[in-house]
Amino acid sequence: MKQSILSNIKPEAEKLDQLMRSDLEVIDNPLLAEVVAYAIFNGGKRIRPLLTVLSARLCGCEALEELYRLALTFEYLHAASLLHDDVIDHAEQRRGRIAANKAWGNTHVILAGDFLHSRAMWLAGTLGGKQCLDKICQAASAMVESEFLQLQNAQRTETSEEYYFQVLKGKTAALIAAACETGVIFAGGTPDKRAALALFGSNLGLSFQIIDDLLDYQGDPARTGKAVGNDFQEGKMTLPLIYAMSQDGGGAGQALSVILKDEPAGRRHSFARARDLIEEAGGFSYARQRAGELIDEAMRGLEIFPAGPGKDLLGALAAYVLERDK
Amino acid sequence: MKQSILSNIKPEAEKLDQLMRSDLEVIDNPLLAEVVAYAIFNGGKRIRPLLTVLSARLCGCEALEELYRLALTFEYLHAASLLHDDVIDHAEQRRGRIAANKAWGNTHVILAGDFLHSRAMWLAGTLGGKQCLDKICQAASAMVESEFLQLQNAQRTETSEEYYFQVLKGKTAALIAAACETGVIFAGGTPDKRAALALFGSNLGLSFQIIDDLLDYQGDPARTGKAVGNDFQEGKMTLPLIYAMSQDGGGAGQALSVILKDEPAGRRHSFARARDLIEEAGGFSYARQRAGELIDEAMRGLEIFPAGPGKDLLGALAAYVLERDK
Repeated sequence: MKQSILSNIKPEAEKLDQLMRSDLEVIDNPLLAEVVAYAIFNGGKRIRPLLTVLSARLCGCEALEELYRLALTFEYLHAASLLHDDVIDHAEQRRGRIAANKAWGNTHVILAGDFLHSRAMWLAGTLGGKQCLDKICQAASAMVESEFLQLQNAQRTETSEEYYFQVLKGKTAALIAAACETGVIFAGGTPDKRAALALFGSNLGLSFQIIDDLLDYQGDPARTGKAVGNDFQEGKMTLPLIYAMSQDGGGAGQALSVILKDEPAGRRHSFARARDLIEEAGGFSYARQRAGELIDEAMRGLEIFPAGPGKDLLGALAAYVLERDK
Repeated sequence: MKQSILSNIKPEAEKLDQLMRSDLEVIDNPLLAEVVAYAIFNGGKRIRPLLTVLSARLCGCEALEELYRLALTFEYLHAASLLHDDVIDHAEQRRGRIAANKAWGNTHVILAGDFLHSRAMWLAGTLGGKQCLDKICQAASAMVESEFLQLQNAQRTETSEEYYFQVLKGKTAALIAAACETGVIFAGGTPDKRAALALFGSNLGLSFQIIDDLLDYQGDPARTGKAVGNDFQEGKMTLPLIYAMSQDGGGAGQALSVILKDEPAGRRHSFARARDLIEEAGGFSYARQRAGELIDEAMRGLEIFPAGPGKDLLGALAAYVLERDK
C-alpha cells in the first residue's frame, strides 16, 4: 500500500522539485544556494505543496505551472521553520543526515531560513494574491505563537490533551490547512469547499504530528533517520505520554511522573521502561486511534466532492500519513 | 540643529509608535508580546517608516492611516533582522540595554524575529499590494545575500572599497530604498519620482551605514549605547580601515595589517593604536567625506520635487544621518 501511494504522488513531487530547482536559481551567493539546497533537497515527500495542487484540482483547477509555483510557498516555509528549529534545538541529525546547524553553523542556517521565509512570502503574494498571503501569514504567526505556548509549558508534566492539541494546531496543522485553503482560493472554490479542505488539512496535520510523536517512541531509526526517545529525554509531553499519565489504574502514571522528574540523562536511561509503562497504560494505541479518527473526520469532510482521481489521491495521502514509518 | 530635526519628526514617530502598539495587540502569547515589545520599543527613531510616509507625501499622498500602517513593515523587518543579528553575533548590548538574546535566550529571539518577519510581509502584501511586496521581498533577500557575501569574505584583510559598498547596498541600503519606493508606489507616483526616491533612499542608507562604521571607532559609548572597537576586534573591514590600508605613504597600511593578523583579544588591545593609524592615514575624514557626497547626491535627486515641508523634512532626515552621534 505504502509503495503504491508514494508511486502515485511521485511524478507530482518530482515536478515540484524541478520547479524549486529553477526557482532557487534566483540566489546569487553560491554558499547561500548550497545551504538552501541542503535544506530543501533532502528526500522530503512534498506533502504540503502537493496538498495545494490537489486541493486546487479538486475545485476544478487545471495543473497550471503558476499553481505549482504558488504551492512551493509551503515547502519553503516548512523548510525555513525546520532550519530555525534545528538551531533552537541544537539538533544533531535530520532525516538521517547531519542537521544543517551542525553542517553549516547557526549563522548560515538562521539566514538561510530568513531567505526561504522571504521567498515564500514573495511567491504567496505575487502568485496567490492578498487572500492567500493573509492565510499564509496567519499560519506563519500561529507557528510562532504555538512554539511560545510550548516554551511556556515545557516544565509542566501535568499537560492536558486539550493543551497538546492547541499547540499542534498552531505548530503543524495551521500551515497544512493553509496549504489546502490556498489551493481552493487559487481555484476560486466556494466557501463550503474551502471549509471542507481547511478541515481536511487541519485534521491531516494533527494526525501527521501524532504519528510523528509515536515514531519518536516506536520508530525504526534506520527508517526515520533519527534516534528514538528524544521527546521523552527532553520531557516533551506528547499524546501517548499524556494519556498514560492520565490513567490511574496500573500506577503507570505515578511511575512515569517519577521518571519525568529526573534529569535528561536519567530520562534517557529509563526510556525503555517508560515506553513499556506507556504501552501497558494503552498510550500508544490511544494515540494511534485518535490519529485514525482525525483522518476519518478529514475524509468525511471531502464527501461534498465527487469521486475522481483528485479525491483518490487526497485519500491516499491521508492513508499514507497514518501508515508512514518514517 | 540635531535637536530641531528630531523635534520635527517626533510627532510622526510618535504616531508610528502608537500604531505599532495597537497593531501588535494581534499577538496572543504574553511572552511573545513581551519579547517583540522589547525589540521594537527601544528608543528607535523610526527612520525607515518615516521615509515611507514622507516619500508618499512628496508624491501628493495625504497622511492616511493605511499608509502609516504599511510603513510599519520597515520597522518590523528592521527589528527582525536586528533580533537575528543579535543571536548570530552573540551580542551583549544593543542601544545601551542588554541585547535581546541575552535577555531572553536565542530560542525566543529567533522566533520573535520570525513573527515580525511574517507580520511585516502581511502588512506589505495586504496594504501595499503586489508591487510593494515584490520590492520588500527583494530587499529582504538582498539582506541575506549580502550577509553571506560578508561571511565569505570575513577573513580577507585586503577588502576593496568596491566590495564594501556591494555589501552595504544589500545590508542597509536596499531596505531603506524599498521604504522610500513603497511610499511612491502607495501614492501612485510616476517612475521618475520612484527612481529619484529609490536613489535618495539607497544613498541615505549607504551614508547611514558609513556613519555607523565611523561611530564604532569614534562614538561616545554614553551616547551610542555600545562600546567602541567591536568592528576592529572582529576584524571587520569597514571604510575608514579599508581606506587607511590602501594608503602606502606613512606605512599605516602595513602596521594595520600586522595588527589585523593578531587574535581578537590582541586586536582589542591594539585598538587605540589602530585608531591613531587610521586617523593619520586620513581614513576617518575620507569616510566622512564619502558619506557627505552620498547625501549630496541623494539631495540632488530630489530636485525634481517642488520645495515644501515634505521635502524639507527629507532633507532634515538626511542631515540628521550625517550628524548623528548615536
